[in-house]
Amino acid sequence: MNQKQLFRNIVAKRSFLCVGLDTEIEKIPAFLLNSKDPVFEFNKRIINATARYAVAFKPNIAFYECSGPKGWISLKLTLDYIRENHPDVLVIADAKRGDIGNTSKMYAKAFFENMSFDAVTVAPYMGEDSVTPFLSYKGKWVILLALTSNTGANDFQYHNQDGISLFEKVLTVSQKWGTPDNLMYVVGATRAEMLKEIRQIVPGHFLLVPGVGAQGGSLKEVAEFGLTSKCGLLVNSSRGIIFADNSENFDKVAGEKAREIQSEMEVCLSQHKLI
Amino acid sequence: MNQKQLFRNIVAKRSFLCVGLDTEIEKIPAFLLNSKDPVFEFNKRIINATARYAVAFKPNIAFYECSGPKGWISLKLTLDYIRENHPDVLVIADAKRGDIGNTSKMYAKAFFENMSFDAVTVAPYMGEDSVTPFLSYKGKWVILLALTSNTGANDFQYHNQDGISLFEKVLTVSQKWGTPDNLMYVVGATRAEMLKEIRQIVPGHFLLVPGVGAQGGSLKEVAEFGLTSKCGLLVNSSRGIIFADNSENFDKVAGEKAREIQSEMEVCLSQHKLI
Repeated sequence: MNQKQLFRNIVAKRSFLCVGLDTEIEKIPAFLLNSKDPVFEFNKRIINATARYAVAFKPNIAFYECSGPKGWISLKLTLDYIRENHPDVLVIADAKRGDIGNTSKMYAKAFFENMSFDAVTVAPYMGEDSVTPFLSYKGKWVILLALTSNTGANDFQYHNQDGISLFEKVLTVSQKWGTPDNLMYVVGATRAEMLKEIRQIVPGHFLLVPGVGAQGGSLKEVAEFGLTSKCGLLVNSSRGIIFADNSENFDKVAGEKAREIQSEMEVCLSQHKLI
Repeated sequence: MNQKQLFRNIVAKRSFLCVGLDTEIEKIPAFLLNSKDPVFEFNKRIINATARYAVAFKPNIAFYECSGPKGWISLKLTLDYIRENHPDVLVIADAKRGDIGNTSKMYAKAFFENMSFDAVTVAPYMGEDSVTPFLSYKGKWVILLALTSNTGANDFQYHNQDGISLFEKVLTVSQKWGTPDNLMYVVGATRAEMLKEIRQIVPGHFLLVPGVGAQGGSLKEVAEFGLTSKCGLLVNSSRGIIFADNSENFDKVAGEKAREIQSEMEVCLSQHKLI
């Protein structure tokens, strides 16, 4: 999927919502625990309830990896289910991988060949040869960490040389490695005011914005500072949607939560004359 | 395993060698491909041939992850095999993980609970809350990326504020999060001359040093600048040992290569009066 197709989906669904599948077995409604694969069963129902309001799904790989091979099977089933039933949706492996070239090549193989994700989040610390193996797949995306939404972001991401913070350097340098058609950036919503500055460095790239909802970010501010003429934003919500309820109606409630966010996004898109 | 026990093993084996299990299916000797689990079969033979010369094994997780659930099964079998047959050896998951707190907690669960690794390599970009969940396990280690051995290390790791490079800041700040008994650092051997400077910042911590051999680093230089009174070094070799030969004698050749490095290490340890 390229930028144009992604924007087309955003316009069609009047939404730039990404639903994070941080599926924690301890938080799954009790009645699902007897099914053959509770994680997949939970995901399936969440996907069906939210897909009409979302342009992307983002399984958080740690939540599958922590269960060993079984977790990877649930992940693969989830991915295949999305592919079959909602082929227009972008599927992001939130994996935060990154290693020396020959090893990143193996991670790219894991997510783009063994599984058919559209995008992978990548950590920039190890530089160019840790990122470029992911960029060599046509139609696939790297989503590179720039400014994250957690408190630890303050430890190193603002390390400043001659007025340039580390995250700004990541944004500047990495633009030489990819294009707005295969490279996005993670920018946390808890720092929405920074989006204005970030848009001066990356005016055309899509930004994946976590931290709206559970982590306290404001959608309105993110849209104000982050929207471009091609939307340019994917805003993620995980816990606020998928764990909004844990009764037998959890999927219905998740759908309602997703619709609420979609409605807010529709207003933002309309105000910015994108729909 | 704490630092004292690790040093005891180093003295007993007269070695600070870590054997990297970057087991690539395309490079495995052809005669093994008919076995039930060629990756595990290869690893088992490499482990048996090299364990007497090595104090640590380091599976590179990407090389297992790229095969999906099957790869994770091979990894678990390998780990269990080491645990059962060579219980004195430190086993490192070379995973380069790191995410917001609640997600890093899941990665820690993956490597320290679902599997029983002794240590995990972690990327520092997201700061304190991305690292500390791994440090809450007694007897387990974080090995934090500081200065890596790849060319991409130059992109961000030298970003310099007031004379302090990013990798130096990582070394300084992260020392508040752990102790020399649960925190090590990755420092590439291709930058052996930097070890002198790094030892001024982290005089007591163990360093995991990749890049000797295939990546061109010199063991003698690493030892000269990196050894401490408790050794303080684990030097990794992967391809130079495990893929030194691809005949039916591959394990014997791997053992010989490991012994060659162990002999060099014995000289270094002796010169520094550690044995």
